[in-house]
Amino acid sequence: MSKSLPSRAENYSEWYNELVKRADLAENSAVRGCMIIKPYGYSIWEKMQRALDDMFKETGHVNAYFPLLIPKSFLSKEASHVEGFAKECAVVTHYRLKNDPNGHGVIVDPEAKLEEELIIRPTSETVIWSTYKNWVQSYRDLPILMNQWANVMRWEMRTRLFLRTAEFLWQEGHTAHATKEEAVVETEQMLNIYSEFAETFMAMPVIKGRKTANERFAGAEDTYCIEAMMQDGKALQAGTSHFLGQNFAKAFDVKFLNKANQQEFVWGTSWGVSTRLMGALIMAHSDDQGLVLPPKLAPIQVVIVPIYKGEEQLNNIKSKIDPLVAALKKRGISVKFDISENQSPGFKFAEYELKGVPVRLAIGNRDIENGTIELARRDTRVKTNLPFEGIEQVIVDTLDDIQISIYQKALGFRAANTFEVNTWDEFLVKIEEGGFLSAHWDGSPETEEKIKELTKATIRCIPLDSQEEAGKCILTGNPSKQRVIFARAY
Amino acid sequence: MSKSLPSRAENYSEWYNELVKRADLAENSAVRGCMIIKPYGYSIWEKMQRALDDMFKETGHVNAYFPLLIPKSFLSKEASHVEGFAKECAVVTHYRLKNDPNGHGVIVDPEAKLEEELIIRPTSETVIWSTYKNWVQSYRDLPILMNQWANVMRWEMRTRLFLRTAEFLWQEGHTAHATKEEAVVETEQMLNIYSEFAETFMAMPVIKGRKTANERFAGAEDTYCIEAMMQDGKALQAGTSHFLGQNFAKAFDVKFLNKANQQEFVWGTSWGVSTRLMGALIMAHSDDQGLVLPPKLAPIQVVIVPIYKGEEQLNNIKSKIDPLVAALKKRGISVKFDISENQSPGFKFAEYELKGVPVRLAIGNRDIENGTIELARRDTRVKTNLPFEGIEQVIVDTLDDIQISIYQKALGFRAANTFEVNTWDEFLVKIEEGGFLSAHWDGSPETEEKIKELTKATIRCIPLDSQEEAGKCILTGNPSKQRVIFARAY
Repeated sequence: MSKSLPSRAENYSEWYNELVKRADLAENSAVRGCMIIKPYGYSIWEKMQRALDDMFKETGHVNAYFPLLIPKSFLSKEASHVEGFAKECAVVTHYRLKNDPNGHGVIVDPEAKLEEELIIRPTSETVIWSTYKNWVQSYRDLPILMNQWANVMRWEMRTRLFLRTAEFLWQEGHTAHATKEEAVVETEQMLNIYSEFAETFMAMPVIKGRKTANERFAGAEDTYCIEAMMQDGKALQAGTSHFLGQNFAKAFDVKFLNKANQQEFVWGTSWGVSTRLMGALIMAHSDDQGLVLPPKLAPIQVVIVPIYKGEEQLNNIKSKIDPLVAALKKRGISVKFDISENQSPGFKFAEYELKGVPVRLAIGNRDIENGTIELARRDTRVKTNLPFEGIEQVIVDTLDDIQISIYQKALGFRAANTFEVNTWDEFLVKIEEGGFLSAHWDGSPETEEKIKELTKATIRCIPLDSQEEAGKCILTGNPSKQRVIFARAY
Repeated sequence: MSKSLPSRAENYSEWYNELVKRADLAENSAVRGCMIIKPYGYSIWEKMQRALDDMFKETGHVNAYFPLLIPKSFLSKEASHVEGFAKECAVVTHYRLKNDPNGHGVIVDPEAKLEEELIIRPTSETVIWSTYKNWVQSYRDLPILMNQWANVMRWEMRTRLFLRTAEFLWQEGHTAHATKEEAVVETEQMLNIYSEFAETFMAMPVIKGRKTANERFAGAEDTYCIEAMMQDGKALQAGTSHFLGQNFAKAFDVKFLNKANQQEFVWGTSWGVSTRLMGALIMAHSDDQGLVLPPKLAPIQVVIVPIYKGEEQLNNIKSKIDPLVAALKKRGISVKFDISENQSPGFKFAEYELKGVPVRLAIGNRDIENGTIELARRDTRVKTNLPFEGIEQVIVDTLDDIQISIYQKALGFRAANTFEVNTWDEFLVKIEEGGFLSAHWDGSPETEEKIKELTKATIRCIPLDSQEEAGKCILTGNPSKQRVIFARAY
């Protein structure tokens, strides 16, 4: 058996890195900052994709595909957009290699230089809005409710598997509307879908809020986000939905004839979640023994390990387990009956704990005699000996219970680590301990910047559900109307 | 109503280009050779993906994701591979833009030059085999049965929507095995899966065969393919499955300890199909009125158009149609009841013909009185007035029948346009008429090349089911053992 993971208490960061590798989720590639998503990790991502895609389609969205490469000049058309992305983009300058005349493999062919350089998309607003110009003439062509699943690239200097990688996978929705109101409703609807997905599928509570101007998407008028708390008390932005106003319509001259027969610029939104959610999922629930996966996203929901000596005992076990496996599969539960002989039951137990399989059953000769079976929950690590009769329903109920329990646990953790803070001294102490600090802020970007410099804490969001409350800015003492959430963040 | 399509007889190439655009499948983007796959086209691709992915998973394959960018030096490691791909690849040389000091937008920052250039993957053998080196130590680590869905880029000079684009979407399977035999079995299995998919889902008959050495994948020992005939008699390669031997294992030093405790190089395969299949699907079945889609891949399988005056008539129609729609949906049939008021029934009929909806129903006031409904098949364009009673089962049966009929029609077309040719004069005449020519070839690459120069015909494949037969090469008169398939190709 391989050595155990570093503990979270010992070194949270190392625990995360090791867990990602040991649980076969992802690894670094030969290209700096670009990851390989391994089959087990990818199968979790596929489940996320399927669930999200269904939710997008239920709300009338369709998928499409736009080019990977963006002409350099497109980026410059929206002033704050280019500001946000130009400093970290991969640039294609040539379209051919040739043999090195000195015999050292291949070199870039200087004669195959592009007239205009192309950028690997960091996000696709520019290429999509340049296309919408041709698609939209009248209000009858609106709304456009479109999404794409794609890879994008941002040349990050410090990368971490899933959390921050140069290339990542994501979905990016890009919608176009005839009115401001409709675009705002869409922006909010998608935030709600993300929040529902995070809470229902990932079992991860999130705070819905607005970003401050400093933290807004480059080119947006308003950025909504969901923020989750990781087990070290740090925040992770898990999804964003942007109200773009008419910014990209103006940059790409996308106008339509409205019902009053007047030319008007189109209103836009964009929204996305990425493989970063994998990092959030891991850090929200897992423990020192390995992954803890919510049953709704677990590639294997139930594993059954037989404990036996000799073929006769195995056959006795099989005759009880095969029908159970069939019955579970019929209910749409993904189940693995692991009769492989290379590893001991103990090794298998540790391996499935590491991989986060929610329910583990073990059955041996004595169980056969007694009509029992052992059920172990991954989340609580509690083992129970149960009657075999009726185990199918127990498994189904346990999966449901785990889904709810780990959500409740994360919710409890967040509650225990969220603090109302009213003085700067208190702020300085609490921010070192980790967690979310609910505090007053005077609304100025300079104050926000100053707090970040002093404490590394950023304003995660202005919560949508927060009440107006008169107060004084934690740093400047200037008047404030509502609390915002400060935290250190991934 | 928009003007009609060019006819196939008039200008097959223009017919195709116009159809792709008018049916909202795809369009060219601002980046040369890169396409935008529009929502309707993408929804067909999604159905293809789902069907193929299910078939891959049923045969034990798992999905993963590898980086978009490949270090230039990786390409050079397999000699024929670099030969095949170096001349048409997009090269990333820089990782940052900066503001132009002369004020013209942004320019490439010369200080952000990469030490080693990166290539946008034209295919992923190199990056994947460099990873397999770390994954494989012993025979216990094998086989690896992996696939990825990804975008790739080959800098083609002459491009056509779906058929040949600089960027395209595909799946690429990459497997690793302990024995040659197992790798060959895998190569053949995947060819069979492609063939089954083409015939069962796309309703497109294909010939399974081997490529000649000239036409082999760069780095493969053997390339298997499926070849389909388009309605202009030209061939289209619809999928390939490569036996890689130990070539990539040797290039990337991927060895394993076999059961006899000896170090051995791993055996490999790779196999792929791409959005090119969209081009094949369109050209295999469609007609001068628009797309003809096989029901198994049609985003909308059934459309129902009401013909009415006033709300009362519409309500009468609704009361009959709503339960039918619900019943069809329950059977998993995708159905659209188009009660939109902007367009006339005639306009809608033409639009759904253009989009290839397999079954169209129309129902008016007289139908309500008579208890009838009109059913039109897209493939034959035959309309029939039928009793409303029992229409649900008729629809289901008609969809099944269309799936089979268009396959049979394509099969008949191929049979009528496949010729055994035994003299060079005959070859020269027949190749101008289009179709597949079954002819003897002496097995030399020079002869193959010469025939291509003289006639633009290539050897599509050496069919797997062809019998040995003594004969003389069509061009040189040299002895030959079996016939091969010649054709002009996309």
